[in-house]
Amino acid sequence: MKEKVVLAYSGGLDTSVTIQWFIDKGYEVVAVCLDVGEGKDLDLVHQKALDMGASESHVIDTTKEFADEFVAYAIYGNAMYEQKYPLVSALSRPLISKKLVEIAHHSNADYVAHGCTGKGNDQVRFEVAIQSLDPSLKVLAPVREWTWSREEEIDYAKEKNIPIPIDLDSPYSIDQNLWGRSNECGVLEDPWNQPPEDAYDLTVNIQDAPDEAEELLITFENGLPKAINGVNYNLDDLIIKLNEIAGAHGIGRIDHVENRLVGIKSREIYETPGAKVILTAKHDLETITLTKDIAHFKPVIEQKFAEQVYNGLWFSPLSDSLRGMLKDMQNPVTGEVRISLYKGNVTVTGRRSDNSLYNEKLATYTKEDAFNQNASVGFIEIFGLPTKVKSMLDSGVKLYD
Amino acid sequence: MKEKVVLAYSGGLDTSVTIQWFIDKGYEVVAVCLDVGEGKDLDLVHQKALDMGASESHVIDTTKEFADEFVAYAIYGNAMYEQKYPLVSALSRPLISKKLVEIAHHSNADYVAHGCTGKGNDQVRFEVAIQSLDPSLKVLAPVREWTWSREEEIDYAKEKNIPIPIDLDSPYSIDQNLWGRSNECGVLEDPWNQPPEDAYDLTVNIQDAPDEAEELLITFENGLPKAINGVNYNLDDLIIKLNEIAGAHGIGRIDHVENRLVGIKSREIYETPGAKVILTAKHDLETITLTKDIAHFKPVIEQKFAEQVYNGLWFSPLSDSLRGMLKDMQNPVTGEVRISLYKGNVTVTGRRSDNSLYNEKLATYTKEDAFNQNASVGFIEIFGLPTKVKSMLDSGVKLYD
Amino acid sequence: MKEKVVLAYSGGLDTSVTIQWFIDKGYEVVAVCLDVGEGKDLDLVHQKALDMGASESHVIDTTKEFADEFVAYAIYGNAMYEQKYPLVSALSRPLISKKLVEIAHHSNADYVAHGCTGKGNDQVRFEVAIQSLDPSLKVLAPVREWTWSREEEIDYAKEKNIPIPIDLDSPYSIDQNLWGRSNECGVLEDPWNQPPEDAYDLTVNIQDAPDEAEELLITFENGLPKAINGVNYNLDDLIIKLNEIAGAHGIGRIDHVENRLVGIKSREIYETPGAKVILTAKHDLETITLTKDIAHFKPVIEQKFAEQVYNGLWFSPLSDSLRGMLKDMQNPVTGEVRISLYKGNVTVTGRRSDNSLYNEKLATYTKEDAFNQNASVGFIEIFGLPTKVKSMLDSGVKLYD
Amino acid sequence: MKEKVVLAYSGGLDTSVTIQWFIDKGYEVVAVCLDVGEGKDLDLVHQKALDMGASESHVIDTTKEFADEFVAYAIYGNAMYEQKYPLVSALSRPLISKKLVEIAHHSNADYVAHGCTGKGNDQVRFEVAIQSLDPSLKVLAPVREWTWSREEEIDYAKEKNIPIPIDLDSPYSIDQNLWGRSNECGVLEDPWNQPPEDAYDLTVNIQDAPDEAEELLITFENGLPKAINGVNYNLDDLIIKLNEIAGAHGIGRIDHVENRLVGIKSREIYETPGAKVILTAKHDLETITLTKDIAHFKPVIEQKFAEQVYNGLWFSPLSDSLRGMLKDMQNPVTGEVRISLYKGNVTVTGRRSDNSLYNEKLATYTKEDAFNQNASVGFIEIFGLPTKVKSMLDSGVKLYD
Repeated sequence: MKEKVVLAYSGGLDTSVTIQWFIDKGYEVVAVCLDVGEGKDLDLVHQKALDMGASESHVIDTTKEFADEFVAYAIYGNAMYEQKYPLVSALSRPLISKKLVEIAHHSNADYVAHGCTGKGNDQVRFEVAIQSLDPSLKVLAPVREWTWSREEEIDYAKEKNIPIPIDLDSPYSIDQNLWGRSNECGVLEDPWNQPPEDAYDLTVNIQDAPDEAEELLITFENGLPKAINGVNYNLDDLIIKLNEIAGAHGIGRIDHVENRLVGIKSREIYETPGAKVILTAKHDLETITLTKDIAHFKPVIEQKFAEQVYNGLWFSPLSDSLRGMLKDMQNPVTGEVRISLYKGNVTVTGRRSDNSLYNEKLATYTKEDAFNQNASVGFIEIFGLPTKVKSMLDSGVKLYD
Repeated sequence: MKEKVVLAYSGGLDTSVTIQWFIDKGYEVVAVCLDVGEGKDLDLVHQKALDMGASESHVIDTTKEFADEFVAYAIYGNAMYEQKYPLVSALSRPLISKKLVEIAHHSNADYVAHGCTGKGNDQVRFEVAIQSLDPSLKVLAPVREWTWSREEEIDYAKEKNIPIPIDLDSPYSIDQNLWGRSNECGVLEDPWNQPPEDAYDLTVNIQDAPDEAEELLITFENGLPKAINGVNYNLDDLIIKLNEIAGAHGIGRIDHVENRLVGIKSREIYETPGAKVILTAKHDLETITLTKDIAHFKPVIEQKFAEQVYNGLWFSPLSDSLRGMLKDMQNPVTGEVRISLYKGNVTVTGRRSDNSLYNEKLATYTKEDAFNQNASVGFIEIFGLPTKVKSMLDSGVKLYD
Repeated sequence: MKEKVVLAYSGGLDTSVTIQWFIDKGYEVVAVCLDVGEGKDLDLVHQKALDMGASESHVIDTTKEFADEFVAYAIYGNAMYEQKYPLVSALSRPLISKKLVEIAHHSNADYVAHGCTGKGNDQVRFEVAIQSLDPSLKVLAPVREWTWSREEEIDYAKEKNIPIPIDLDSPYSIDQNLWGRSNECGVLEDPWNQPPEDAYDLTVNIQDAPDEAEELLITFENGLPKAINGVNYNLDDLIIKLNEIAGAHGIGRIDHVENRLVGIKSREIYETPGAKVILTAKHDLETITLTKDIAHFKPVIEQKFAEQVYNGLWFSPLSDSLRGMLKDMQNPVTGEVRISLYKGNVTVTGRRSDNSLYNEKLATYTKEDAFNQNASVGFIEIFGLPTKVKSMLDSGVKLYD
Repeated sequence: MKEKVVLAYSGGLDTSVTIQWFIDKGYEVVAVCLDVGEGKDLDLVHQKALDMGASESHVIDTTKEFADEFVAYAIYGNAMYEQKYPLVSALSRPLISKKLVEIAHHSNADYVAHGCTGKGNDQVRFEVAIQSLDPSLKVLAPVREWTWSREEEIDYAKEKNIPIPIDLDSPYSIDQNLWGRSNECGVLEDPWNQPPEDAYDLTVNIQDAPDEAEELLITFENGLPKAINGVNYNLDDLIIKLNEIAGAHGIGRIDHVENRLVGIKSREIYETPGAKVILTAKHDLETITLTKDIAHFKPVIEQKFAEQVYNGLWFSPLSDSLRGMLKDMQNPVTGEVRISLYKGNVTVTGRRSDNSLYNEKLATYTKEDAFNQNASVGFIEIFGLPTKVKSMLDSGVKLYD
């Protein structure tokens, strides 16, 4: 009996060639393509896998699961790698891995395969995630293994009658899902080059964005966005909606030279219009609903969580604990944020909440003031005491003898 | 002989009344007004202090010292309290305190005084800083002590022939220096209210900003900006220049509900156009000049430093150490950043450096690729080993027996 | 009707005088004394409160609640302030506060009172805890308020026929509960003085401890100790048992100059024999049951938790989240630790667990070795790549051109 | 001309075989053996290298350099990996690497070699350190490469007339230097086994230690120990002296299951008698000489530094910065610590310093008390304000309306 391999199939040249390559090697191939909200026609992908010789082809819509079980935690945790990258691809890899493993179990396959090269983060994310879900599965990475040049790959494809995509000469390498789009390669590889307009797809150039600002009211419940202008949406639909609205205002372009897990710096272009709006508004709502000590400590948890996800460690006891803590800390983050979208800007113009810890009576400088200013004298005396003692030592002034 | 008090004098109503109040109490008053780049006519302030009855009036231009000895460290450290506030007032307080203490020593004064209320951060910053410079000086805080209503204060002023400022009915409480402008009070006290245009002074509304983008080339040396478009400036002049240029593009408005040291949340409006440009460009230059381990650890130092400065602990052994480390880490941050300013946006369009750690040969996906993809197999095996062992335990799969 | 105050009553001079002082001021006093495992005869205390004039006297055994709801989290979190102090008094204060508030509600009292001075941590812990449980309750602190010298207090006591304790001339100030005993004051106030033997009560001098080592087997379940030498105990009983056993071996003496919340350094002597044994054994069990990433990140959570508890912030959203995370991380900490007690030493001589992540096949240097040493080549190449790129830049060596 | 390789030579079987193996492969071998205070007779090693066929043999006494340039920073930083392991081997690897590179430059060698296996940390430390000092040098790791079983290695040795060490059947794998001794393998590989006495060499069993305590006075200057009982020593001599004194009292045994860099847990036995004494005394001296904010933040720096060193990143910009900061923070750590050594215990019985921030007048509970207890009222009101506001929100109690 043939050995069976479950392949993460995208419909592109690399994974199409991979199917044929596996067949040449004597494997039976089960192709799996997930919809994580990238807005591609997956019926074509489904058929193409079969045309390429896959024995089975699975196309699964995981958009909702992706939003609810993965993106939601990125929102709870304001997840941002190196303070810039909101973890687009890094979030989908564990979900894809999970589905690959499920189908491998269902199909009695001993092998799982991905189409990643050997110099990116995604190979690590897939392999570590798969191993953590089933350590007995073997992971194959043909693209990393065959080490063909692009020309050799095309020759192979032609020989095997694999259709060559029309956009093959695109200089870019793109990944996309609900939470955003990443782009690298080509002219972008020189960090001094300004990204050309064709590097972008979800957002307009800010100079071409409308001359009118657009105001939105975003409603949050326990840290997640629930409604836009009073209309409720499921999380996946809400993000897709915001991608459209904010993308039209040129919001969410990121140009970042980042430190990959595999030791190199790479220049990446991201577009995350919906994420930019949601994270800006939510972070603002946190300023009135979280206590100071949580507000000051949560970033430590956030940074560790972002790093874990970026490094492919979504499925791990530490990530489990971090997710639990982040969700727990979001309980009070319920309320409304009014924002204005205009030519690349997301401006918060107001925030309110039934859980607000902002106390106008304590904050005001009017005669309504309820703050006991006299208490400050004692506070400063004690808060400043260590400084004073140190200063007495340094200056030789002895105050208490 | 009269007891002498050195007063931080601003020329406003509060500190003018303070002079008279001290005279009533039998003190001799030495007024000190520092120019920290707030662009106010200080000759008038100098004369006014004498008119109010001060025995001496000192106006000191500390703009350069403020930039070189205080703001420079905020730049090294990307200093941002609660990820939003670039420490405008918090940076000037230690410098003002230092000058007050120097003049107190020079004048043989036993008292130093400030005009802060009892519910803000600045009272703490002044008192702790002064104590750390000379623990034998006594600090007086008349405004906190007299606890008059605004009306009572005005009555007192009228009675004493203290001129009432024309803008007294301004609802706002403003502080300004080279590094920015803060504004609070009045309509801003409700965090749901959109700040009205008259709350701003250094920046135009983004909708009124020019329809043409402006491109700038900023040159950095060891973490500090040195030139704009190839023209060298001293740091203070460069910041002032950028405040003008970027303010005209509506850049640098911040609307933040922050956690004060004295336990309350307050809503603050900041304008920091120059700071926004400098910090955006410099942080970007760091992405190619800092190693990954520094890039990931420096934020820990940055956050602690910002917190120390915000809390008034500029003069303390910990702050000294943090400043030393931040400066040390900036050695390689030399190079150029090309930015585009447009309607509120600071967009980095390119960065380059002789110290760049970005290696195109390692990063490229072309045939020039020098990265050994085969090494990834071993890397992933070892990087994923703890996960695998945990997974073996959880699943009962025994791979090594 | 008289105003009613619920007083944390210890039976000592300060709180006895406090009852009388409140009665003089016209209050009705409800005395509350909690048993938190300090091993004192509380029947006498109960009666004494009534003798002093309290209208009600409550003595409540909270030993079990203290162990299960407070000490347990100290164990989960290896809680240690400044790496030395296992939070003895700091742990009992929130529980006492909770009971005071409950009784205040039950008695319809508007006031709660404690007998702390104005320079310790406990005043802060009581007042902040009480406020967080019911912000409408007013907290009174007579000892801080009356500012009597010891002589004045004794004069007052004599005048009012309050019995003066026999051990009044004890130089020490002691607090004790299940988790340990703290001692300060007197000769201990000079950090150069060696603590005299009479400063200790729970432990023998190591030189007087038995010449034979005692071996124990401690069983843990989910981070908590469950059995000693195979005999199960409730947590409170287990700690009391270990206090006796380990105290007899001179284990758990701590001599620490600590930084108080109120800005001063103070020298404290602690005895925590049971805590020392439990934390040593449990921390060791964590080395085989926790993943590396948890083992390296948990100390961040632990340190913040210890700081929150020390600072009196047990009841706060951040502490809630930290407790949740710490407990969650302890799930796998189940197993056995064999220890040897001997003259001050707790030596772990073995640890084992069904959840052990230690894999002998991977660790061994025998021919059983299952570790793929070849993978290290790739691992090192990628792990060292950032260093190599930096080194190429510094040395001018160009390897990839 | 033959290619030349500079080999870190220990005199043991592995590196002796390595010399022959290199000669077989056609290399010329330069043997280098460093004295880092392990107390071995290096003259024999020097001659043995030549006997084995090395063309040059260098034996270098680096004991002083090791103490002053490497161990000193471990002391500044209280360096402890996973709170247990004081970085014995990890400290010597960068020094050895540095010397290997210097000799490679001097000998015009293109290759450097070590005798580590493929599953330990040391291979990583050597290779990363060498690369960071000269990225053009190639590192060879024959032991990792040849993958012989012990039997095959012995057969090869016999065939080549390489003397087989008498202690070859020792089950242990040992590394030693000034700062301590590590031991692993054999019976130690089962973490449940109690280490047998023959696993130890620098320390006696605590039960065999003297029945008399020994008191020492250690003098520190700027964080480093300078004198014992008033007698000055160079750092290397002082450590060696303390190893002897404290080892005789059974002090410094560590039994730790640690997380290696290469993904496995391993059980290690360390003996660090001198390190234990120095770090205990120095840490105690820090409690009176460091400000609270440094005392609370320094552990963050310490932990990161220990991790960097453990991971072989001694030579890196981050480690440079961390060392600078740690040294800077030690300026005030000057003074005396009195300790008692007794059967495994290092007990601090007193500490004093001209830089002491402990203020007895502020700390005392006698009538000398200079602390303003009244200030606590204001301090608590403000410190507790966030808690109160949160509590008002949760309970619905409105205090300020």
